[in-house]
Amino acid sequence: MNEKEKDFKKNPRKEEITRRGFIGAGAAGALGLATIAQSASAASGKKLRFDAEYDVVVCGSGAGGLGTALFSRWQGNSVVVLEKSGSIGGTTAKSGFWYWIPNNEPMKKAGIQDPKPDFMKLVARLSAPHSYSPSAPKLGLTDWQYDMCEAYYDTASTAAELLNARGALPYQHPADVVDYWADLPENKAPKGRALLPAGASLHNGGKFGIMSLSNAARRDGISIKTSHRVQSIIRNGRGEVVGVEVTSPEGETLRFRAKKAVVFATGGFTHDPQLRRDFLCGNIVGGCAANSNEGDFIRISSPLGVQLANMNYAWNCPVVFEKAVANDGSLWGAFMPSGDSMVFVNKYGNRVVNEKLQYNEVTRAFWAWDGPRQEYPNEVLIAIWDQQAQDNCAEEHYGSYIVPPGSDDRHVIKGATREELAKNIAARMAVYRDRFNISLAPEFVATLNDTIRRFNEFAKTGKDLDFHRGERPVELMFNGNNKATGKANPTMYPISDTGPFYATLLGPGNLDTKGGPRTDTHGRILDVKGQPIPGLYGVGNCVASASGQAYWSGGATLGPIVTFAYRAANALQKERTKEVTA
Amino acid sequence: MNEKEKDFKKNPRKEEITRRGFIGAGAAGALGLATIAQSASAASGKKLRFDAEYDVVVCGSGAGGLGTALFSRWQGNSVVVLEKSGSIGGTTAKSGFWYWIPNNEPMKKAGIQDPKPDFMKLVARLSAPHSYSPSAPKLGLTDWQYDMCEAYYDTASTAAELLNARGALPYQHPADVVDYWADLPENKAPKGRALLPAGASLHNGGKFGIMSLSNAARRDGISIKTSHRVQSIIRNGRGEVVGVEVTSPEGETLRFRAKKAVVFATGGFTHDPQLRRDFLCGNIVGGCAANSNEGDFIRISSPLGVQLANMNYAWNCPVVFEKAVANDGSLWGAFMPSGDSMVFVNKYGNRVVNEKLQYNEVTRAFWAWDGPRQEYPNEVLIAIWDQQAQDNCAEEHYGSYIVPPGSDDRHVIKGATREELAKNIAARMAVYRDRFNISLAPEFVATLNDTIRRFNEFAKTGKDLDFHRGERPVELMFNGNNKATGKANPTMYPISDTGPFYATLLGPGNLDTKGGPRTDTHGRILDVKGQPIPGLYGVGNCVASASGQAYWSGGATLGPIVTFAYRAANALQKERTKEVTA
Repeated sequence: MNEKEKDFKKNPRKEEITRRGFIGAGAAGALGLATIAQSASAASGKKLRFDAEYDVVVCGSGAGGLGTALFSRWQGNSVVVLEKSGSIGGTTAKSGFWYWIPNNEPMKKAGIQDPKPDFMKLVARLSAPHSYSPSAPKLGLTDWQYDMCEAYYDTASTAAELLNARGALPYQHPADVVDYWADLPENKAPKGRALLPAGASLHNGGKFGIMSLSNAARRDGISIKTSHRVQSIIRNGRGEVVGVEVTSPEGETLRFRAKKAVVFATGGFTHDPQLRRDFLCGNIVGGCAANSNEGDFIRISSPLGVQLANMNYAWNCPVVFEKAVANDGSLWGAFMPSGDSMVFVNKYGNRVVNEKLQYNEVTRAFWAWDGPRQEYPNEVLIAIWDQQAQDNCAEEHYGSYIVPPGSDDRHVIKGATREELAKNIAARMAVYRDRFNISLAPEFVATLNDTIRRFNEFAKTGKDLDFHRGERPVELMFNGNNKATGKANPTMYPISDTGPFYATLLGPGNLDTKGGPRTDTHGRILDVKGQPIPGLYGVGNCVASASGQAYWSGGATLGPIVTFAYRAANALQKERTKEVTA
Repeated sequence: MNEKEKDFKKNPRKEEITRRGFIGAGAAGALGLATIAQSASAASGKKLRFDAEYDVVVCGSGAGGLGTALFSRWQGNSVVVLEKSGSIGGTTAKSGFWYWIPNNEPMKKAGIQDPKPDFMKLVARLSAPHSYSPSAPKLGLTDWQYDMCEAYYDTASTAAELLNARGALPYQHPADVVDYWADLPENKAPKGRALLPAGASLHNGGKFGIMSLSNAARRDGISIKTSHRVQSIIRNGRGEVVGVEVTSPEGETLRFRAKKAVVFATGGFTHDPQLRRDFLCGNIVGGCAANSNEGDFIRISSPLGVQLANMNYAWNCPVVFEKAVANDGSLWGAFMPSGDSMVFVNKYGNRVVNEKLQYNEVTRAFWAWDGPRQEYPNEVLIAIWDQQAQDNCAEEHYGSYIVPPGSDDRHVIKGATREELAKNIAARMAVYRDRFNISLAPEFVATLNDTIRRFNEFAKTGKDLDFHRGERPVELMFNGNNKATGKANPTMYPISDTGPFYATLLGPGNLDTKGGPRTDTHGRILDVKGQPIPGLYGVGNCVASASGQAYWSGGATLGPIVTFAYRAANALQKERTKEVTA
């Protein structure tokens, strides 16, 4: 420990090391010890050297990282947060920051019951659709899933309340937000589980949440270092995790010691095409995770013999194809499938899905496979709308593809007639033909005309006989702006027979992946034999989610993250200080 | 090296060590050195001890293992094959042992052209359906896929010819076997690529192939040890792979040194439910891989920091549900969707797929997801046939579910009427209700009647307007026994309106998985940074297949296995003898 670090330990609120002094120490460390022990055996007895020392080293500065850092700091630990990107917040900062907290305090105050047995049945049905059995002891979940879901139910509200009480994440309780599966019989609390950072609108909670979490972190003496990319895990001669090796903003190698634990909260692998291809259950053209979510923890943890789990699933959403393939850093999922006089059609001009279904479910439509043709006919879907929808349904938030005048609308394809629209869609697709196998079928316009004719009948009667559009509560919540009156079904309005027409290409995407090393219910990373790797923890999308394929509801991403941040902090508090002998 | 082992080296044909002597050495080894070096760093300088020593240690005794062993032995190496199971042959022994060898010698002799550019387009279209582009330099494949496919084309025939020439795998050229994608424009050789062990029928090549491979192995002095389960990889202080630790039939720990290389050919993870759940892109109720295929190499290689790849895909096939969930070791895929007056329907009584499609494609129908209902409506499909099909289409091979009188038909559900059949199907499903979320919808019989009425119209006209049954060459090849005459389409015959009726439950299954650590084109296992791990090789279903989601044709499993066995043997021949210092 150098003098600056000692100074931090005595007086956490004034811990900022001068860049010069800190880097000096780092460079010396990097030069002094090139090889590191990464093995549980063959100990050399050499003393490992570090450039800085904390009780807890947290990697990643989204809600998982800042949350764990705070919960841990509040128990008296010195804590550093290392963030790869130049700015804090990760995917959380981009998100709406809904967090789904079962049986939360505002629910209790409002008299909303959320009994545990029913909650467990709800998540089991959604997460284990192949094996769900309400009478089985674990309801069809694996033991691990069951334990994780139970830990979530038991701890979520405690975690949320502590963050609220300490001013780190004051919340509001948006009473009108419905669960995505509000209409399932297993759901006894169709409204009430969603919380939102105080002061935020439904679409910008991330900004508010990260601001309050990071303000609390700084207030309470947590060091946050951006542009510090963690490269590897340092283990002592016993195989215990004792720190991380990091590349500094200046490109130097720094070694951070963690006396108690290293916690990874570094997000998933949305932006690594190779990992997507090798693991995900469906093709993804991009996603709205922070662009820094490149699966670092998969690669960093691989040499430790971790067990990867739930690698096939992601938090899915449709995305505007052209923004996703451009890696537009501001990308949101098309969470709001805007438009009433609007349909999604595939390359043949057919509707193939209820457009208003919640985003995770709509995404699966893109993955339909045509065996005889050996093609994905829905590889892109084309949202098509008319002037009425353009005039009355535009929205600048929630990932809407129908945008108001003056907004960036480069993703919108236009045509005075359906024929012209199709010609322009085909031309736009051709731009991407060297990378994506996408095109329009010759019969596209003819089929589209039939599709619209049929859809318009549904709009008039209010009954979508093909896909049941607008029949579920969540579809109405995400229906978006619309002003047309006299609708039999608020989600449908007849599409005009005359132009102009508008279209955009949609592709399968995600918010982030949700597979990685498996943890126990305390966030401890497990090895292939099921044993915790001493000193190594994980929280959030960089580790395996017990939710399996399911998207339980809005905030089912951040709800468990906040919860397991709390559980990890409590568990690592019991870790002893580890030796630094190689 | 003990005296027995030295003796082997001098005289390979008499190498069998007495059990007693061998185990004695093993026990001493196990007691003598409990910890092993598993790290590239922190070398201790201690000398590792072994119970036996070979140039090459091969794990697994299917075609991949025996093939590599032979190719390697023929270059002068001492070779041992370690087989976990009590008998040799693995999944290969159970298979039909078709092997798909592009541009093979019999094709050339028969004047069948198989030009490389077209072959590459064919496999690219099938393996990269999202990105296939005939004008792109790599055709839409990744660099790795392209290189692997090219290596396959370039080497397959050489490998097959060498096995043939040395009497290890004499082959026949079944001229009537059609490619599964015979009808794609990219396929310039719709017949001719499939080879089959000499003497075999189309359904029992595995027995013949393993017999000839293992006879050659014994003839040429390769030691084959069954009931030897490899538990871990032994590395020296430099991180090079120098051997394996094995559990002997008596439960002792034995340490085998590999002077040049350890080759894993241990199959996939079909029989490990947790790995299936954590990685595969679709649910699997079981499979026809050897029951010993439990993903050992995933767990054994994890601590070495390998890069797992293609983990989401498998060689898929429908399976008889009840045999699969019983882990029936003799299970075959329902490769032959037998019956003309036969349909597959789902829980609602609807047809959802062309029943005669090749098995890999049919399997994807089981994975259709109904978002609003949150269920897999095709979780099981029910094959239903009448007395005509029972009398005329029964077959005892090829995984046929319509079996001749006297065969085990416990998987067959019967009913005098459709109502009674449905009642009995529901009762059979109820047996599994605690483990599988399967049931019949109340409207099943009514819908089934409509389904059959429509199917019977198709059978009369010969045109399946819904799923195009029987329109492709491969469907006729797998059509199976049938005697009814006057059919407009050989795959369809009207289903009787009167009973008795027969049914069986079919579920999604596989031949084996095809993901694992990534290798280079020489079978060298790559670490997360893309570097070969010195001394470690992999062949077959235990490593990543470059085929992605595709099942190129019958024998696209064993064709590449034979090829990469040859390439791995050639590459490891250049390995130097590794130190055994920890």
